[in-house]
Amino acid sequence: MQSQLDDLFSFLRFPSISTASEHAGDVLACGQWLEQKLSGMGLSVELHETPGHPVVVARNEHKEGRKTVLIYGHYDVQPVDPIELWDTAPFEPVLKDGRIWGRGTSDNKGQMMAHVLGVEKTLKEHGELPVNLIFLFEGEEEIGSPNLVPFLEAHKAELACDIIAVSDTGMVARGVPTMGYGLRGITCCEVTVKGPSGDLHSGCYGGAVANPVTAVARLVASLHDAEGNIAIEGFYDDVKPLENWEREMWAQIPGMSDQDMMGLTGAPAVFGEPGYSTAERLWARPTAEVNGIGGGYQGEGSKTVLPAEAMAKFSFRLVPNQVPEDISKKVQAHLEKHAPVGVTVEVEVGHDGKPYYSDPNSPYGKAGQIALEKSFGKKPVLIREGGSIPIIKDMQDILGADSLLLGLSLPDCQIHAPNENFWVENFEAGIEMNAILLKELAKV
Amino acid sequence: MQSQLDDLFSFLRFPSISTASEHAGDVLACGQWLEQKLSGMGLSVELHETPGHPVVVARNEHKEGRKTVLIYGHYDVQPVDPIELWDTAPFEPVLKDGRIWGRGTSDNKGQMMAHVLGVEKTLKEHGELPVNLIFLFEGEEEIGSPNLVPFLEAHKAELACDIIAVSDTGMVARGVPTMGYGLRGITCCEVTVKGPSGDLHSGCYGGAVANPVTAVARLVASLHDAEGNIAIEGFYDDVKPLENWEREMWAQIPGMSDQDMMGLTGAPAVFGEPGYSTAERLWARPTAEVNGIGGGYQGEGSKTVLPAEAMAKFSFRLVPNQVPEDISKKVQAHLEKHAPVGVTVEVEVGHDGKPYYSDPNSPYGKAGQIALEKSFGKKPVLIREGGSIPIIKDMQDILGADSLLLGLSLPDCQIHAPNENFWVENFEAGIEMNAILLKELAKV
Repeated sequence: MQSQLDDLFSFLRFPSISTASEHAGDVLACGQWLEQKLSGMGLSVELHETPGHPVVVARNEHKEGRKTVLIYGHYDVQPVDPIELWDTAPFEPVLKDGRIWGRGTSDNKGQMMAHVLGVEKTLKEHGELPVNLIFLFEGEEEIGSPNLVPFLEAHKAELACDIIAVSDTGMVARGVPTMGYGLRGITCCEVTVKGPSGDLHSGCYGGAVANPVTAVARLVASLHDAEGNIAIEGFYDDVKPLENWEREMWAQIPGMSDQDMMGLTGAPAVFGEPGYSTAERLWARPTAEVNGIGGGYQGEGSKTVLPAEAMAKFSFRLVPNQVPEDISKKVQAHLEKHAPVGVTVEVEVGHDGKPYYSDPNSPYGKAGQIALEKSFGKKPVLIREGGSIPIIKDMQDILGADSLLLGLSLPDCQIHAPNENFWVENFEAGIEMNAILLKELAKV
Repeated sequence: MQSQLDDLFSFLRFPSISTASEHAGDVLACGQWLEQKLSGMGLSVELHETPGHPVVVARNEHKEGRKTVLIYGHYDVQPVDPIELWDTAPFEPVLKDGRIWGRGTSDNKGQMMAHVLGVEKTLKEHGELPVNLIFLFEGEEEIGSPNLVPFLEAHKAELACDIIAVSDTGMVARGVPTMGYGLRGITCCEVTVKGPSGDLHSGCYGGAVANPVTAVARLVASLHDAEGNIAIEGFYDDVKPLENWEREMWAQIPGMSDQDMMGLTGAPAVFGEPGYSTAERLWARPTAEVNGIGGGYQGEGSKTVLPAEAMAKFSFRLVPNQVPEDISKKVQAHLEKHAPVGVTVEVEVGHDGKPYYSDPNSPYGKAGQIALEKSFGKKPVLIREGGSIPIIKDMQDILGADSLLLGLSLPDCQIHAPNENFWVENFEAGIEMNAILLKELAKV
């Protein structure tokens, strides 16, 4: 185990933040480290340059008549701010209280490395794998995988596979193995509201020209009605309604009560779309979130200024069968329609990704369920995920293969937030699960 | 003139930002420089410590039977951010295109220094002043003068006076001398909205707990109706209606058309309370402004986070006969009433100041008008001001004297904003105006 932890820690030390251009060198260095690790295991590895960060592809010797399994992961991570809220340095991983702490431990380096080290273990024990394996690791998942779709299209033949396995999702609770069969999609945009050409004295000009902060706040407020329904025209039109078996199964899943959610998040209450439970809101209903807002004076004390501009960053989580481009257009039409008088509103459309859905009880799905049951000693629950891995849907479309979502992260793993962590017990179970999974998939 | 400019430049070089605790030493140094300057002119000077920044009081030898004139000003300045928008360093004043550029040039060091140097000039030419003079200069105007009221009360007898002169306001246009007889008051508060105990992944939790940025935006949006009226219950109850003569005079004042306001501010349109002109909105109607808003990720790119908290800084400009404490209570009641579900809302009440009003055609008011007419060669216009100098009302209440508002700043002087500036011609006219004013007031 120590050498496996050493590998993971080395991998975690790279500050491979894909959204920050000053970290481009770190993302590359992290990809190169991965290339070396996989080569050392006897796989043939290619580090493919892209217009952004590189894609690392590795494979064993492929043989006729075997199933081909593609394992996807990403080696890029989220930014670390607010840095002051971290108890330990984000890129100096530490092992404490049964968990590994640091940026990327859960999302996705820890989970991804469980598969890499599971394969290493099988290779060491058996000299070969029971399947044709393709590792596909990208460095741009946290910015919406802008270069992976062209990559998939250009390498469609070499990446052809029967099934895809991905551990970039979560378990519903500690000790409860979880298989995901759906993911929310996403579409993002940033709104800039401009008023006066420079900041003005709020006494000398306040009341006579529109305040861009007020304007951006009115736009944000316009996205929902008072009850929490999204107020964008046509937003819910294509939403696939929940199946009865989903509502029934999800009502039984541990860790999803209002009390659990409040304990987990620290929020003083749950809140969301009327008529749905927390699990349903997270896994089967779309959202309109503001990820950031800013304008005017935010420092110590007061500054009586009428700001020249303000901005808000939005992301919309989408569910089957919403289409990102369609929602993006509806959002833009909404923002235009609600643009307050006296300011200009600019909308910059950001990354997007389609929602994903597949049958959890297909033969491959059953193999995934068995691998989870054997490695965790308990039958898995079947869920959808609230997060987005847009590329899962793209791989379904381009490579024609479904993905088994075999998440190893726990709800308290703080992904995308300060003090991200990963349970060592799940790292170990993940290594084990990979070995069983390849065996089970070989039998399908 | 050169030695007068040298004095002003020395005064401007102190970064006497009263709101920023790290500049406390600079505020003190600036007050000490002033103490030295005034001593050097033969005045008796006292630098009074306060719990905050010092008050500087200077006086000539007072004689029986003369009018006592108090001249008020402030030597503290606003913060300088956004620093990147300044064309020159804010505390390295430069003379260019007929103007002096730097923080505090107009607000208030330039205008204040015109009075100091006007007195110096009279003393040099005549050996004495025609009135008993008191200079009262504080270092906390930009943070609402928290220690000046106790100071006035403690020194009520020594500060007794017949009339007060203040140049901390504006002229409506270049070459149009302007006397103010009213000021807006102010009350400020900061709202902090808290949701989850830390930032959350917007995919994993979005839709199930309230977003504090959405919540703060809904609070900001709740302050106005769609037309621009303030929607806080009872907010307008005590507003003194405009007099007909005011509406008529103000309609004639140059520089106040919609086109002028758009040109001056760069705003794409004027906007404000329905049924009022720009001048009326600025000078006789109250406002609800957001001076700053912040929450979540504001950096480069996107970060799909559900933020733990968000904040907004508000200021409300008040008009006669609104009472700051009363408005503050109404604002708090409004924010409580509109607090969204799923978050906690904390309101921290900030500084405040009463609105001010006096008769511009009193004997002292007439003296002020004559001083302006003689120094600028043109009859002054009579206006109220949109800004707040809360202490003017406090001096009226405690010292029992009205203030003549003899503003020398122009609408394009960018006070509180980057590239603050002051016209040299108004600096010169201000020095002249001070000399005439003391003579005219002596005759009342």
